[in-house]
Amino acid sequence: MKSTLKRKTGISPTASRIAQASLQLFNQQGERNVTTNHIARHLAMSTGNLYYHFSSKEDIIQALYQSYGDRMAWLLAEADARRHSLEELVVVLDAVLQHQWDYRFLLQSSASLFPFNAQLRASYQKFEVEQIAVGIESLFLKLREDGLFEGSVAAIRMLAVHFQLLQAAWIAHPERAGQSAAADQVVEDGRRQLLAFLRPHIAPAWQAAFERVASASACLPALVALSGRLAGSERAALCY
Amino acid sequence: MKSTLKRKTGISPTASRIAQASLQLFNQQGERNVTTNHIARHLAMSTGNLYYHFSSKEDIIQALYQSYGDRMAWLLAEADARRHSLEELVVVLDAVLQHQWDYRFLLQSSASLFPFNAQLRASYQKFEVEQIAVGIESLFLKLREDGLFEGSVAAIRMLAVHFQLLQAAWIAHPERAGQSAAADQVVEDGRRQLLAFLRPHIAPAWQAAFERVASASACLPALVALSGRLAGSERAALCY
Repeated sequence: MKSTLKRKTGISPTASRIAQASLQLFNQQGERNVTTNHIARHLAMSTGNLYYHFSSKEDIIQALYQSYGDRMAWLLAEADARRHSLEELVVVLDAVLQHQWDYRFLLQSSASLFPFNAQLRASYQKFEVEQIAVGIESLFLKLREDGLFEGSVAAIRMLAVHFQLLQAAWIAHPERAGQSAAADQVVEDGRRQLLAFLRPHIAPAWQAAFERVASASACLPALVALSGRLAGSERAALCY
Repeated sequence: MKSTLKRKTGISPTASRIAQASLQLFNQQGERNVTTNHIARHLAMSTGNLYYHFSSKEDIIQALYQSYGDRMAWLLAEADARRHSLEELVVVLDAVLQHQWDYRFLLQSSASLFPFNAQLRASYQKFEVEQIAVGIESLFLKLREDGLFEGSVAAIRMLAVHFQLLQAAWIAHPERAGQSAAADQVVEDGRRQLLAFLRPHIAPAWQAAFERVASASACLPALVALSGRLAGSERAALCY
Protein backbone atom coordinates (compact mmCIF):
# COMPACT_ATOMS: atom_id res chain seq x y z
CA MET A 1 0.00 0.00 0.00
CA LYS A 2 2.95 2.26 0.62
CA SER A 3 3.80 2.40 -3.04
CA THR A 4 0.14 3.02 -3.91
CA LEU A 5 0.03 6.02 -1.62
CA LYS A 6 3.19 7.41 -3.12
CA ARG A 7 2.10 6.83 -6.69
CA LYS A 8 -1.39 8.20 -6.16
CA THR A 9 -0.55 11.40 -4.36
CA GLY A 10 2.82 12.17 -5.95
CA ILE A 11 4.34 13.03 -2.57
CA SER A 12 7.97 12.48 -1.58
CA PRO A 13 9.18 9.12 -0.19
CA THR A 14 9.51 10.58 3.32
CA ALA A 15 6.06 12.18 3.21
CA SER A 16 4.68 8.87 2.00
CA ARG A 17 6.39 7.07 4.88
CA ILE A 18 4.87 9.56 7.35
CA ALA A 19 1.41 9.17 5.85
CA GLN A 20 1.67 5.39 5.87
CA ALA A 21 2.80 5.25 9.52
CA SER A 22 0.04 7.70 10.46
CA LEU A 23 -2.57 5.53 8.78
CA GLN A 24 -1.39 2.52 10.74
CA LEU A 25 -1.31 4.38 14.08
CA PHE A 26 -4.67 6.12 13.49
CA ASN A 27 -6.32 2.78 12.72
CA GLN A 28 -4.75 0.92 15.63
CA GLN A 29 -4.83 3.49 18.41
CA GLY A 30 -7.62 5.81 17.34
CA GLU A 31 -6.86 8.95 15.38
CA ARG A 32 -7.70 11.18 18.34
CA ASN A 33 -5.06 9.54 20.50
CA VAL A 34 -2.26 9.97 17.98
CA THR A 35 -0.39 13.27 17.77
CA THR A 36 2.33 14.37 15.34
CA ASN A 37 4.76 13.71 18.21
CA HIS A 38 3.64 10.08 18.37
CA ILE A 39 4.06 9.71 14.64
CA ALA A 40 7.54 11.25 14.62
CA ARG A 41 8.63 9.07 17.56
CA HIS A 42 7.23 5.98 15.85
CA LEU A 43 9.38 6.77 12.82
CA ALA A 44 12.43 7.77 14.91
CA MET A 45 12.22 11.15 13.19
CA SER A 46 12.43 14.66 14.61
CA THR A 47 9.14 16.56 14.76
CA GLY A 48 10.94 19.28 12.81
CA ASN A 49 11.49 16.86 9.96
CA LEU A 50 7.84 15.78 10.10
CA TYR A 51 6.69 19.41 10.00
CA TYR A 52 8.89 19.97 6.97
CA HIS A 53 6.60 17.55 5.10
CA PHE A 54 3.24 18.26 6.75
CA SER A 55 2.27 21.46 8.52
CA SER A 56 -0.21 19.73 10.83
CA LYS A 57 -1.95 16.47 11.67
CA GLU A 58 -4.91 17.68 9.60
CA ASP A 59 -2.53 17.97 6.64
CA ILE A 60 -1.62 14.29 7.02
CA ILE A 61 -5.30 13.38 7.27
CA GLN A 62 -5.98 15.45 4.16
CA ALA A 63 -3.28 13.51 2.23
CA LEU A 64 -4.71 10.19 3.42
CA TYR A 65 -8.21 11.32 2.48
CA GLN A 66 -6.95 12.17 -1.01
CA SER A 67 -5.41 8.74 -1.34
CA TYR A 68 -8.57 7.08 0.02
CA GLY A 69 -10.72 9.09 -2.36
CA ASP A 70 -8.64 8.38 -5.46
CA ARG A 71 -9.01 4.65 -4.99
CA MET A 72 -12.72 4.91 -4.14
CA ALA A 73 -13.28 6.81 -7.39
CA TRP A 74 -11.32 4.12 -9.25
CA LEU A 75 -13.39 1.34 -7.64
CA LEU A 76 -16.61 3.17 -8.51
CA ALA A 77 -15.53 3.31 -12.16
CA GLU A 78 -14.72 -0.41 -11.93
CA ALA A 79 -18.22 -1.12 -10.60
CA ASP A 80 -19.72 0.84 -13.45
CA ALA A 81 -17.62 -1.08 -16.01
CA ARG A 82 -18.59 -4.42 -14.46
CA ARG A 83 -22.24 -3.71 -13.89
CA HIS A 84 -23.50 -6.39 -16.25
CA SER A 85 -22.11 -9.17 -14.08
CA LEU A 86 -23.41 -9.66 -10.55
CA GLU A 87 -20.36 -11.76 -9.70
CA GLU A 88 -17.97 -9.01 -10.71
CA LEU A 89 -20.01 -6.35 -8.93
CA VAL A 90 -19.69 -8.35 -5.72
CA VAL A 91 -15.93 -8.60 -6.17
CA VAL A 92 -15.81 -4.82 -6.44
CA LEU A 93 -18.02 -4.51 -3.35
CA ASP A 94 -15.54 -6.68 -1.44
CA ALA A 95 -12.69 -4.50 -2.66
CA VAL A 96 -14.56 -1.36 -1.51
CA LEU A 97 -15.16 -2.82 1.95
CA GLN A 98 -11.52 -3.90 2.18
CA HIS A 99 -10.40 -0.42 1.16
CA GLN A 100 -12.71 1.26 3.68
CA TRP A 101 -11.41 -1.07 6.38
CA ASP A 102 -7.82 -0.15 5.44
CA TYR A 103 -8.74 3.51 6.01
CA ARG A 104 -11.25 2.90 8.79
CA PHE A 105 -10.05 5.78 10.98
CA LEU A 106 -11.41 8.15 8.29
CA LEU A 107 -14.89 6.66 8.54
CA GLN A 108 -14.68 6.71 12.35
CA SER A 109 -13.51 10.30 12.54
CA SER A 110 -15.37 11.92 9.67
CA ALA A 111 -18.51 12.86 11.63
CA SER A 112 -16.61 14.47 14.51
CA LEU A 113 -13.77 16.00 12.49
CA PHE A 114 -14.76 16.92 8.96
CA PRO A 115 -17.69 19.29 9.64
CA PHE A 116 -15.55 21.41 11.95
CA ASN A 117 -12.41 21.81 9.81
CA ALA A 118 -12.68 24.09 6.77
CA GLN A 119 -10.15 22.24 4.59
CA LEU A 120 -11.51 18.77 5.33
CA ARG A 121 -15.09 19.98 4.98
CA ALA A 122 -14.32 21.37 1.52
CA SER A 123 -12.62 18.11 0.47
CA TYR A 124 -15.54 16.10 1.80
CA GLN A 125 -18.03 18.22 -0.13
CA LYS A 126 -16.03 17.98 -3.34
CA PHE A 127 -15.29 14.27 -3.13
CA GLU A 128 -17.89 12.47 -1.02
CA VAL A 129 -20.92 14.57 -1.90
CA GLU A 130 -20.28 15.72 -5.46
CA GLN A 131 -18.34 12.72 -6.78
CA ILE A 132 -19.03 9.50 -4.87
CA ALA A 133 -22.66 10.08 -3.85
CA VAL A 134 -23.51 11.21 -7.39
CA GLY A 135 -21.59 8.25 -8.86
CA ILE A 136 -23.32 5.65 -6.69
CA GLU A 137 -26.72 7.14 -7.46
CA SER A 138 -25.92 7.02 -11.16
CA LEU A 139 -24.73 3.40 -10.87
CA PHE A 140 -27.90 2.38 -9.02
CA LEU A 141 -30.12 4.09 -11.61
CA LYS A 142 -28.27 2.29 -14.41
CA LEU A 143 -28.78 -1.00 -12.58
CA ARG A 144 -32.45 -0.11 -12.43
CA GLU A 145 -32.50 0.52 -16.19
CA ASP A 146 -30.66 -2.78 -16.70
CA GLY A 147 -33.54 -4.44 -14.86
CA LEU A 148 -31.63 -5.55 -11.74
CA PHE A 149 -33.37 -3.18 -9.31
CA GLU A 150 -37.11 -2.80 -9.10
CA GLY A 151 -38.75 0.42 -7.92
CA SER A 152 -39.37 4.04 -8.84
CA VAL A 153 -36.48 6.36 -9.64
CA ALA A 154 -37.09 8.09 -6.31
CA ALA A 155 -37.00 4.78 -4.43
CA ILE A 156 -33.75 3.69 -6.09
CA ARG A 157 -32.19 7.09 -5.39
CA MET A 158 -33.02 6.64 -1.72
CA LEU A 159 -31.69 3.08 -1.86
CA ALA A 160 -28.35 4.45 -3.09
CA VAL A 161 -28.20 6.92 -0.20
CA HIS A 162 -29.03 4.26 2.38
CA PHE A 163 -26.53 1.86 0.83
CA GLN A 164 -23.71 4.37 1.34
CA LEU A 165 -24.78 5.19 4.88
CA LEU A 166 -24.96 1.52 5.83
CA GLN A 167 -21.64 0.69 4.21
CA ALA A 168 -19.81 3.41 6.13
CA ALA A 169 -21.72 2.70 9.35
CA TRP A 170 -20.76 -0.96 9.09
CA ILE A 171 -17.04 -0.18 8.94
CA ALA A 172 -17.05 2.67 11.49
CA HIS A 173 -19.27 0.98 14.07
CA PRO A 174 -17.72 1.15 17.56
CA GLU A 175 -18.14 -2.60 17.98
CA ARG A 176 -15.68 -3.16 15.16
CA ALA A 177 -13.67 0.06 15.11
CA GLY A 178 -11.69 -0.52 18.28
CA GLN A 179 -10.86 -4.12 17.54
CA SER A 180 -8.17 -5.46 15.34
CA ALA A 181 -10.75 -7.69 13.70
CA ALA A 182 -9.62 -9.85 10.81
CA ALA A 183 -10.14 -7.86 7.63
CA ASP A 184 -11.43 -10.94 5.79
CA GLN A 185 -14.20 -11.35 8.34
CA VAL A 186 -15.18 -7.68 8.25
CA VAL A 187 -15.38 -7.81 4.46
CA GLU A 188 -17.34 -11.05 4.37
CA ASP A 189 -19.83 -9.96 7.04
CA GLY A 190 -20.18 -6.54 5.44
CA ARG A 191 -20.91 -8.05 2.04
CA ARG A 192 -23.50 -10.38 3.55
CA GLN A 193 -25.22 -7.47 5.34
CA LEU A 194 -25.26 -5.21 2.29
CA LEU A 195 -26.58 -7.90 -0.04
CA ALA A 196 -29.34 -8.70 2.47
CA PHE A 197 -30.15 -4.98 2.52
CA LEU A 198 -30.43 -4.90 -1.29
CA ARG A 199 -32.38 -8.18 -1.58
CA PRO A 200 -35.95 -6.74 -1.41
CA HIS A 201 -35.17 -4.46 -4.35
CA ILE A 202 -33.92 -7.14 -6.77
CA ALA A 203 -36.28 -7.73 -9.70
CA PRO A 204 -37.83 -11.25 -9.89
CA ALA A 205 -35.92 -12.13 -13.10
CA TRP A 206 -32.62 -11.60 -11.25
CA GLN A 207 -33.46 -13.21 -7.93
CA ALA A 208 -32.05 -16.67 -8.65
CA ALA A 209 -28.76 -15.23 -9.88
CA PHE A 210 -28.67 -12.87 -6.91
CA GLU A 211 -29.13 -15.70 -4.41
CA ARG A 212 -26.37 -17.67 -6.11
CA VAL A 213 -23.94 -14.79 -5.71
CA ALA A 214 -25.13 -13.90 -2.21
CA SER A 215 -24.54 -17.43 -0.95
CA ALA A 216 -21.12 -17.85 -2.59
CA SER A 217 -18.25 -18.05 -0.17
CA ALA A 218 -15.56 -15.39 0.11
CA CYS A 219 -13.72 -14.85 -3.10
CA LEU A 220 -10.35 -13.81 -1.81
CA PRO A 221 -8.15 -14.57 -4.81
CA ALA A 222 -10.26 -12.24 -6.93
CA LEU A 223 -10.35 -9.68 -4.16
CA VAL A 224 -6.61 -9.76 -3.74
CA ALA A 225 -6.12 -9.36 -7.47
CA LEU A 226 -8.48 -6.41 -7.66
CA SER A 227 -7.10 -4.79 -4.52
CA GLY A 228 -3.59 -4.99 -5.86
CA ARG A 229 -1.93 -2.83 -8.40
CA LEU A 230 -3.78 -3.99 -11.48
CA ALA A 231 -4.48 -1.40 -14.12
CA GLY A 232 -8.13 -0.50 -14.45
CA SER A 233 -8.39 -2.36 -17.72
CA GLU A 234 -7.21 -5.67 -16.29
CA ARG A 235 -9.85 -8.10 -15.16
CA ALA A 236 -9.60 -9.96 -11.89
CA ALA A 237 -9.86 -13.73 -12.16
CA LEU A 238 -13.15 -14.76 -10.60
CA CYS A 239 -13.67 -17.68 -8.30
CA TYR A 240 -17.43 -18.05 -8.51
CA MET B 1 -34.12 19.72 29.22
CA LYS B 2 -32.01 21.05 32.08
CA SER B 3 -34.43 19.75 34.65
CA THR B 4 -34.65 16.40 32.85
CA LEU B 5 -30.89 16.00 33.03
CA LYS B 6 -30.90 16.84 36.73
CA ARG B 7 -33.79 14.54 37.54
CA LYS B 8 -32.46 11.66 35.47
CA THR B 9 -28.90 11.61 36.73
CA GLY B 10 -29.42 12.85 40.27
CA ILE B 11 -26.45 15.21 39.98
CA SER B 12 -26.13 18.58 41.70
CA PRO B 13 -27.55 21.76 40.13
CA THR B 14 -24.07 23.03 39.28
CA ALA B 15 -23.04 19.71 37.72
CA SER B 16 -26.28 19.74 35.75
CA ARG B 17 -25.55 23.28 34.56
CA ILE B 18 -22.04 22.20 33.44
CA ALA B 19 -23.41 19.16 31.64
CA GLN B 20 -26.12 21.22 29.94
CA ALA B 21 -23.66 23.89 28.74
CA SER B 22 -21.28 21.17 27.54
CA LEU B 23 -24.04 19.53 25.53
CA GLN B 24 -24.82 22.83 23.84
CA LEU B 25 -21.17 23.62 23.08
CA PHE B 26 -20.37 20.07 21.91
CA ASN B 27 -23.32 20.14 19.51
CA GLN B 28 -22.62 23.61 18.18
CA GLN B 29 -18.82 23.68 17.95
CA GLY B 30 -17.94 20.00 17.72
CA GLU B 31 -17.03 18.02 20.82
CA ARG B 32 -13.39 17.81 19.76
CA ASN B 33 -13.03 21.58 19.66
CA VAL B 34 -14.45 22.14 23.14
CA THR B 35 -12.20 21.76 26.20
CA THR B 36 -13.08 21.98 29.89
CA ASN B 37 -11.52 25.46 29.76
CA HIS B 38 -14.02 26.51 27.10
CA ILE B 39 -16.88 25.14 29.15
CA ALA B 40 -15.77 26.89 32.34
CA ARG B 41 -15.28 30.18 30.49
CA HIS B 42 -18.70 29.86 28.89
CA LEU B 43 -20.21 29.51 32.37
CA ALA B 44 -18.03 32.26 33.89
CA MET B 45 -16.79 29.59 36.29
CA SER B 46 -13.26 28.73 37.43
CA THR B 47 -11.83 25.49 36.00
CA GLY B 48 -11.21 24.50 39.63
CA ASN B 49 -14.93 24.66 40.29
CA LEU B 50 -15.64 22.64 37.15
CA TYR B 51 -13.11 19.99 38.20
CA TYR B 52 -14.80 19.79 41.58
CA HIS B 53 -17.85 18.41 39.77
CA PHE B 54 -16.24 16.46 36.91
CA SER B 55 -12.73 15.08 36.91
CA SER B 56 -12.38 15.29 33.12
CA LYS B 57 -14.16 16.05 29.87
CA GLU B 58 -14.75 12.30 29.49
CA ASP B 59 -16.58 12.40 32.82
CA ILE B 60 -18.95 15.05 31.44
CA ILE B 61 -19.47 12.98 28.29
CA GLN B 62 -20.16 9.94 30.46
CA ALA B 63 -22.86 11.86 32.40
CA LEU B 64 -24.44 13.05 29.14
CA TYR B 65 -24.34 9.53 27.75
CA GLN B 66 -26.13 8.29 30.88
CA SER B 67 -28.81 10.92 30.42
CA TYR B 68 -29.09 10.13 26.70
CA GLY B 69 -29.33 6.42 27.43
CA ASP B 70 -31.98 6.74 30.14
CA ARG B 71 -34.32 8.52 27.80
CA MET B 72 -33.59 6.17 24.91
CA ALA B 73 -34.49 3.23 27.14
CA TRP B 74 -37.70 5.02 28.15
CA LEU B 75 -38.60 5.71 24.51
CA LEU B 76 -37.92 2.07 23.61
CA ALA B 77 -40.35 0.98 26.34
CA GLU B 78 -42.85 3.50 24.95
CA ALA B 79 -42.48 1.99 21.47
CA ASP B 80 -43.09 -1.46 22.88
CA ALA B 81 -46.21 -0.29 24.73
CA ARG B 82 -47.55 1.43 21.60
CA ARG B 83 -46.67 -1.25 19.10
CA HIS B 84 -50.28 -2.00 18.13
CA SER B 85 -50.73 1.45 16.60
CA LEU B 86 -48.66 2.49 13.61
CA GLU B 87 -49.54 6.12 14.27
CA GLU B 88 -48.23 5.99 17.82
CA LEU B 89 -45.10 4.11 16.76
CA VAL B 90 -44.29 6.90 14.34
CA VAL B 91 -44.77 9.50 17.07
CA VAL B 92 -42.21 7.59 19.15
CA LEU B 93 -39.87 7.39 16.16
CA ASP B 94 -40.08 11.18 15.82
CA ALA B 95 -39.31 11.55 19.52
CA VAL B 96 -36.29 9.23 19.18
CA LEU B 97 -34.94 11.22 16.23
CA GLN B 98 -35.51 14.47 18.11
CA HIS B 99 -33.69 13.07 21.14
CA GLN B 100 -30.77 11.83 19.03
CA TRP B 101 -30.54 15.24 17.39
CA ASP B 102 -30.49 16.90 20.84
CA TYR B 103 -27.48 14.72 21.70
CA ARG B 104 -26.02 14.60 18.19
CA PHE B 105 -22.41 15.13 19.32
CA LEU B 106 -22.59 11.66 20.93
CA LEU B 107 -23.53 10.02 17.65
CA GLN B 108 -20.86 12.02 15.82
CA SER B 109 -18.13 11.20 18.32
CA SER B 110 -18.97 7.65 19.32
CA ALA B 111 -16.98 5.91 16.56
CA SER B 112 -13.80 7.91 17.18
CA LEU B 113 -14.07 8.20 20.97
CA PHE B 114 -15.88 5.28 22.59
CA PRO B 115 -13.74 2.36 21.36
CA PHE B 116 -10.58 3.99 22.68
CA ASN B 117 -11.75 5.00 26.17
CA ALA B 118 -12.23 2.19 28.70
CA GLN B 119 -15.04 3.83 30.69
CA LEU B 120 -17.04 4.92 27.64
CA ARG B 121 -16.45 1.59 25.92
CA ALA B 122 -17.86 -0.26 28.94
CA SER B 123 -20.92 2.03 29.07
CA TYR B 124 -21.45 1.59 25.36
CA GLN B 125 -21.31 -2.19 25.67
CA LYS B 126 -23.70 -2.23 28.62
CA PHE B 127 -26.20 0.21 27.21
CA GLU B 128 -26.06 0.30 23.40
CA VAL B 129 -25.20 -3.34 22.78
CA GLU B 130 -26.86 -5.21 25.64
CA GLN B 131 -29.90 -3.00 26.19
CA ILE B 132 -30.88 -0.97 23.13
CA ALA B 133 -29.81 -3.34 20.36
CA VAL B 134 -31.47 -6.27 22.16
CA GLY B 135 -34.59 -4.16 22.81
CA ILE B 136 -34.97 -3.06 19.20
CA GLU B 137 -34.47 -6.60 17.96
CA SER B 138 -37.12 -7.80 20.40
CA LEU B 139 -39.51 -5.03 19.28
CA PHE B 140 -38.99 -5.88 15.61
CA LEU B 141 -39.58 -9.60 16.26
CA LYS B 142 -42.81 -8.79 18.12
CA LEU B 143 -43.91 -6.61 15.19
CA ARG B 144 -43.19 -9.61 12.98
CA GLU B 145 -45.37 -11.81 15.20
CA ASP B 146 -48.08 -9.12 15.13
CA GLY B 147 -48.02 -9.46 11.34
CA LEU B 148 -46.62 -6.01 10.51
CA PHE B 149 -43.26 -7.21 9.21
CA GLU B 150 -42.89 -9.98 6.68
CA GLY B 151 -39.77 -12.16 6.50
CA SER B 152 -37.81 -14.82 8.33
CA VAL B 153 -36.66 -14.29 11.91
CA ALA B 154 -33.10 -13.94 10.60
CA ALA B 155 -34.18 -11.32 8.05
CA ILE B 156 -36.07 -9.27 10.65
CA ARG B 157 -33.13 -9.47 13.06
CA MET B 158 -30.91 -8.04 10.35
CA LEU B 159 -33.55 -5.39 9.58
CA ALA B 160 -33.38 -4.28 13.23
CA VAL B 161 -29.59 -3.96 13.05
CA HIS B 162 -29.73 -1.98 9.82
CA PHE B 163 -32.49 0.24 11.19
CA GLN B 164 -30.29 1.28 14.11
CA LEU B 165 -27.25 1.84 11.92
CA LEU B 166 -29.24 4.00 9.51
CA GLN B 167 -30.92 5.98 12.26
CA ALA B 168 -27.60 6.89 13.87
CA ALA B 169 -25.90 7.47 10.50
CA TRP B 170 -28.70 9.83 9.51
CA ILE B 171 -28.20 12.04 12.57
CA ALA B 172 -24.39 11.89 12.63
CA HIS B 173 -23.82 12.40 8.90
CA PRO B 174 -21.25 15.15 8.25
CA GLU B 175 -23.65 16.91 5.90
CA ARG B 176 -25.99 17.54 8.81
CA ALA B 177 -23.70 17.40 11.81
CA GLY B 178 -21.87 20.66 11.25
CA GLN B 179 -24.95 22.64 10.43
CA SER B 180 -27.41 24.16 12.78
CA ALA B 181 -30.19 22.57 10.75
CA ALA B 182 -33.74 23.01 11.97
CA ALA B 183 -34.53 20.09 14.27
CA ASP B 184 -38.05 19.77 12.80
CA GLN B 185 -36.60 19.26 9.35
CA VAL B 186 -34.03 16.70 10.52
CA VAL B 187 -36.78 14.75 12.30
CA GLU B 188 -39.18 14.89 9.39
CA ASP B 189 -36.57 13.90 6.79
CA GLY B 190 -35.23 11.17 9.06
CA ARG B 191 -38.69 9.69 9.60
CA ARG B 192 -39.34 9.73 5.85
CA GLN B 193 -36.03 7.97 5.15
CA LEU B 194 -36.53 5.32 7.82
CA LEU B 195 -40.10 4.54 6.80
CA ALA B 196 -38.96 4.20 3.16
CA PHE B 197 -36.27 1.82 4.40
CA LEU B 198 -38.87 -0.31 6.22
CA ARG B 199 -41.45 -0.23 3.40
CA PRO B 200 -40.34 -3.42 1.54
CA HIS B 201 -40.75 -5.43 4.74
CA ILE B 202 -44.33 -4.41 5.54
CA ALA B 203 -46.82 -7.26 5.14
CA PRO B 204 -49.50 -6.74 2.44
CA ALA B 205 -52.33 -6.53 4.99
CA TRP B 206 -50.64 -3.50 6.60
CA GLN B 207 -49.49 -1.68 3.49
CA ALA B 208 -52.45 0.68 3.15
CA ALA B 209 -52.24 1.72 6.80
CA PHE B 210 -48.47 2.10 6.47
CA GLU B 211 -48.77 4.40 3.44
CA ARG B 212 -51.34 6.50 5.28
CA VAL B 213 -48.96 7.02 8.20
CA ALA B 214 -45.90 7.47 5.99
CA SER B 215 -47.56 10.24 4.01
CA ALA B 216 -48.94 12.11 7.05
CA SER B 217 -47.35 15.46 7.68
CA ALA B 218 -45.24 16.23 10.73
CA CYS B 219 -47.09 15.74 13.95
CA LEU B 220 -45.38 18.24 16.16
CA PRO B 221 -47.98 18.71 18.89
CA ALA B 222 -47.84 14.98 19.66
CA LEU B 223 -44.06 15.04 19.41
CA VAL B 224 -43.75 17.95 21.79
CA ALA B 225 -46.07 16.25 24.28
CA LEU B 226 -44.10 13.02 24.16
CA SER B 227 -40.75 14.77 24.30
CA GLY B 228 -41.78 16.71 27.36
CA ARG B 229 -41.98 15.55 30.92
CA LEU B 230 -44.95 13.24 30.64
CA ALA B 231 -44.90 10.14 32.77
CA GLY B 232 -44.53 6.93 30.80
CA SER B 233 -48.15 6.05 31.44
CA GLU B 234 -49.53 9.23 29.92
CA ARG B 235 -50.52 9.13 26.31
CA ALA B 236 -49.56 11.84 23.89
CA ALA B 237 -52.47 13.38 22.03
CA LEU B 238 -52.16 12.34 18.41
CA CYS B 239 -52.73 14.52 15.42
CA TYR B 240 -53.24 11.93 12.73
